[in-house]
Amino acid sequence: MAEKVYRASTTAPVNIAVVKYWGKRDAKLNLPTNSSLSVTLSQSDLRTLTTASCSAAYPAADGDSLLLNGEPSDVSGARTQACFRELRARRAALETADVSLPKLSTMPLRIVSENNFPTAAGLASSAAGFAALVRAIADLYELPASPAELSLIARQGSGSACRSLFGGYVAWRMGDAADGSDSVADQVAEAAHWPDMRALILVVSAAKKGVSSTSGMQQTVATSGLFQERIARVVPQHMAAMEKAIRERDFAAFAEVTMRDSNSFHATCADTYPPIFYMNDVSRAAIRAVEQINAAAGRTVAAYTFDAGPNAVIYYLEKDAEAVVGTLYHVLGAAVDGWKDAVVKGLKPTVTLDEAVAGLLKSGVSRVILTGVGEGPAKTDEHLVAEDGTPVTARR
Amino acid sequence: MAEKVYRASTTAPVNIAVVKYWGKRDAKLNLPTNSSLSVTLSQSDLRTLTTASCSAAYPAADGDSLLLNGEPSDVSGARTQACFRELRARRAALETADVSLPKLSTMPLRIVSENNFPTAAGLASSAAGFAALVRAIADLYELPASPAELSLIARQGSGSACRSLFGGYVAWRMGDAADGSDSVADQVAEAAHWPDMRALILVVSAAKKGVSSTSGMQQTVATSGLFQERIARVVPQHMAAMEKAIRERDFAAFAEVTMRDSNSFHATCADTYPPIFYMNDVSRAAIRAVEQINAAAGRTVAAYTFDAGPNAVIYYLEKDAEAVVGTLYHVLGAAVDGWKDAVVKGLKPTVTLDEAVAGLLKSGVSRVILTGVGEGPAKTDEHLVAEDGTPVTARR
Repeated sequence: MAEKVYRASTTAPVNIAVVKYWGKRDAKLNLPTNSSLSVTLSQSDLRTLTTASCSAAYPAADGDSLLLNGEPSDVSGARTQACFRELRARRAALETADVSLPKLSTMPLRIVSENNFPTAAGLASSAAGFAALVRAIADLYELPASPAELSLIARQGSGSACRSLFGGYVAWRMGDAADGSDSVADQVAEAAHWPDMRALILVVSAAKKGVSSTSGMQQTVATSGLFQERIARVVPQHMAAMEKAIRERDFAAFAEVTMRDSNSFHATCADTYPPIFYMNDVSRAAIRAVEQINAAAGRTVAAYTFDAGPNAVIYYLEKDAEAVVGTLYHVLGAAVDGWKDAVVKGLKPTVTLDEAVAGLLKSGVSRVILTGVGEGPAKTDEHLVAEDGTPVTARR
Repeated sequence: MAEKVYRASTTAPVNIAVVKYWGKRDAKLNLPTNSSLSVTLSQSDLRTLTTASCSAAYPAADGDSLLLNGEPSDVSGARTQACFRELRARRAALETADVSLPKLSTMPLRIVSENNFPTAAGLASSAAGFAALVRAIADLYELPASPAELSLIARQGSGSACRSLFGGYVAWRMGDAADGSDSVADQVAEAAHWPDMRALILVVSAAKKGVSSTSGMQQTVATSGLFQERIARVVPQHMAAMEKAIRERDFAAFAEVTMRDSNSFHATCADTYPPIFYMNDVSRAAIRAVEQINAAAGRTVAAYTFDAGPNAVIYYLEKDAEAVVGTLYHVLGAAVDGWKDAVVKGLKPTVTLDEAVAGLLKSGVSRVILTGVGEGPAKTDEHLVAEDGTPVTARR
């Protein structure tokens, strides 16, 4: 009879930091120079689906493999290998303790993964990708590991991936152990604690890919004269203020820390030698748009934040959709992809953005993504590997 | 017989800082949070010509007046008044000590001033303006004041004006006296010490005027979490390294500090809340152009610096004109105003800038200014006030 194919599938979310991770104190273990905090986004809009499978029938010669968005992906990198090694070691320990268990740790892994959003969007998909990969293999191996323990493994694949193992509002504690054993993620609050948090992502077409965040953050640590101040004093203040704002559902405080931390992070990039610029004139126009929307509202209804790219992520609360989405929909119009009728229907602008700002946004925003706070990884029966071990073709 | 009209005329230069002044510890006295250092630019390209005159024949009712580039200019501002007050007090002391002196301190001042460069260029003209104003009145009053003493007066008109009272390489020492008596400029080196220093200014058309530097620097001091680190640690290091580089005529060191300090200054602007952006995508393209020119040369032949606006000032040495001017002239071509045939004649590009960079420069650079290190204020017989006291019409 044919060898059995063991399978487990999971989905994992994207997260967008409101207190940024920028800087490694240990590049090999992916240990950060500072703690960070993020909002997990809804998987109905942005998610990675990953099936991990293994079988004695898989040719050992082929070794472990990963099919990512239909393309074979290299798994020989130190980061992916670290995740495989950590997970196999835990499975092997179970197999040693209970000899009746199938020896999955000895079988080649065949992993198939897909994002439900275009890579072109330039959204960091590595976080969702490694979170899904680690969680799927952990489920395949039936490891009794907690999300926190898995976050420690995912962190070695991609730092921010550790935050995608939880839903809602998630902190990555930098820790201080040399081996990184205490550099893990924990949930500050569930999505249900503050469920009306929304995110409007303005996807900005970049002239060309900037410096990769991995090398960029290392250059910043090595050359910025201002960076040490950010990690020693600024970030700890932002972390404390952000956790308080989330606990108290204080959007004005959440927004101010979010905007200040994004500014501080990009300031240390600009202070890097040679300087690193992720934002462009369109990104800066998005900042002015948020300032004008808040000024018109007479209170803080929107907060911008930028990762290592020109895309603007604008957080707002459901009740303020008209001021935020209505105003930007009025400027960008239906010409830009990604609006949801259910969201924009009937929304009117609450302010007319100044011409220079509106013009830059029109010229540079290629699409939008409307989403909100969401849940963590979830097991699914939607498998990307058939029972006979063959990859299932993309359904996108 | 007609009352005599007393006149004195002087020219004063523009200066471009290589270690930036950004932040006041005392807004009233214009006392800075940190020392700064600049290169005085040649007056044959950029200068203010000012004639100070006074006469008992001038109607007292009219009071003091200033005609700037042909337009009446308000002199009631606290800063202009501070300069007038300081200079009159010194004149009055002389008149008290020697009663035979004419009582110029009691006569209305009629001042006429002109720049030899378009205000449109967006070059900080206030430094040259206040330096010329203070020096012209001091000459009119025949004050025995040294440039350092006059720098203390000019500083109260416009901070960076104190550096325009000297030629060559000039430091503004922040001082620590509460009354600002030790916040003065001094000459680090004469122009003749390092005469082959050149500057190519790329005038970039800004979409709209950014935040004024006066209010901008106050916002930065009040809100940037990184600013204190800049003034406490970064700037003192840059000042020491820059003075050494100038003493040793070490262009590579001069260039690195110049670029790092410009980056650091703009980083604290980006870290201001709300953030202040003076540079735009064209400015950043100028940075990439300098990086590409230096990479192609295999050594540092050019250094960029940006003040509170999008214009790029590129310092280089005469011997490297081909690499710097030749390359940029090749990209911008004769379509852009301001090239000097004597400088660009026969120069060939040493590197082809990448397309995105070249495209941005072509789209956003409106003119160039070719100049170099130059001398300080100079007395002149070219008067903008006739012997009968009437303003002379502009000869521009």
